[in-house]
Amino acid sequence: MNDELVFYGNPRSRAQMVHFMLEELGVPYRPVVVDFQNGESRQPDYLAVNPMGKVPAIVHRGVTVTETGAIIAYLADAFPQAGLAPAIDDPARGTWLRWLFFGAGVFEPALLDKMMQRPEAPRATAGYGSYEDALHAIEAMLQPGPWILGERFSAADVYMGSELSWAASFNAPDIADNPRIAAYIERVRARPAYQRTVSA
Amino acid sequence: MNDELVFYGNPRSRAQMVHFMLEELGVPYRPVVVDFQNGESRQPDYLAVNPMGKVPAIVHRGVTVTETGAIIAYLADAFPQAGLAPAIDDPARGTWLRWLFFGAGVFEPALLDKMMQRPEAPRATAGYGSYEDALHAIEAMLQPGPWILGERFSAADVYMGSELSWAASFNAPDIADNPRIAAYIERVRARPAYQRTVSA
Repeated sequence: MNDELVFYGNPRSRAQMVHFMLEELGVPYRPVVVDFQNGESRQPDYLAVNPMGKVPAIVHRGVTVTETGAIIAYLADAFPQAGLAPAIDDPARGTWLRWLFFGAGVFEPALLDKMMQRPEAPRATAGYGSYEDALHAIEAMLQPGPWILGERFSAADVYMGSELSWAASFNAPDIADNPRIAAYIERVRARPAYQRTVSA
Repeated sequence: MNDELVFYGNPRSRAQMVHFMLEELGVPYRPVVVDFQNGESRQPDYLAVNPMGKVPAIVHRGVTVTETGAIIAYLADAFPQAGLAPAIDDPARGTWLRWLFFGAGVFEPALLDKMMQRPEAPRATAGYGSYEDALHAIEAMLQPGPWILGERFSAADVYMGSELSWAASFNAPDIADNPRIAAYIERVRARPAYQRTVSA
């Protein structure tokens, strides 16, 4: 089986979050830039990789993985030597999965609703709840800190840290002026691996 | 450490998906019904479990896990004897994670947008894309079938199967009249574990 790790991305997309993860891991990979602005992501070649026509995606050992959170979780487990995933039998595993899924299933859609100034969905209808509830949960997530798992930096920080940094970069409400969240974003942005994705 | 598994849920919520998972696992657990219609999920006692004030949640070995997809993934790994999670070094692991995250981060919000008849978000803005793209990806997910991992039923089917069954139950567009998706939903609903959650 081909052990190659291929990374389909574009610096101007959520693929930056996967780039950050790959830099944290320090493993070799082959980057492929998909120019979605020129429609390349909707061409048959790329739709065969991801029928959603979205980046990021990876192919590892012949298997395609899409969805930013899934890719980050997968890579953390696939390269355990980097120590970015608690072992399956570590109780911290539940906390780790919780916030990875929170990033994908709560923060992203709640942020989109907020930025598009959409009327809030009825509480019982939207599984992800409101943006304000999400920020409240994120404050709880950051206690005691400095990372989601306490002293231990993990793939959950790569994802949630990237999401929050990204939200702050376009001035999403109540992010940069929340001291706990702002300090967390600064810690994430100070990671050498993060720095390498910005300067790339 | 307390090994008890506590399940906070309500039959009239997405907690049914976790109930289905628990029945597939066949492990003992203590159910706690949270009456969100009476505001119980917004009381301090429950907010201490989940600051989002949402069900489902579980507490296992003293650790809280929220977000339906995270709980299902966590439980599959925590009880490997049920065979609902590919091992970490199994290439199917990436496919499994992909569709678990797809359920949380793509299908749920795309379905909500569709049901609320919201104008579609710009493609580059919404990480989850359109409802139509999501259904197209789900058709690809079900090839060759019968399950997401082929012959092997897994926690990814518990989650995506529950999501699709739930969407069909309130007549979400292009679900029940899509032969491949409808047949998949029928297979999921025929699981004895699923049946037990409906009759409960």
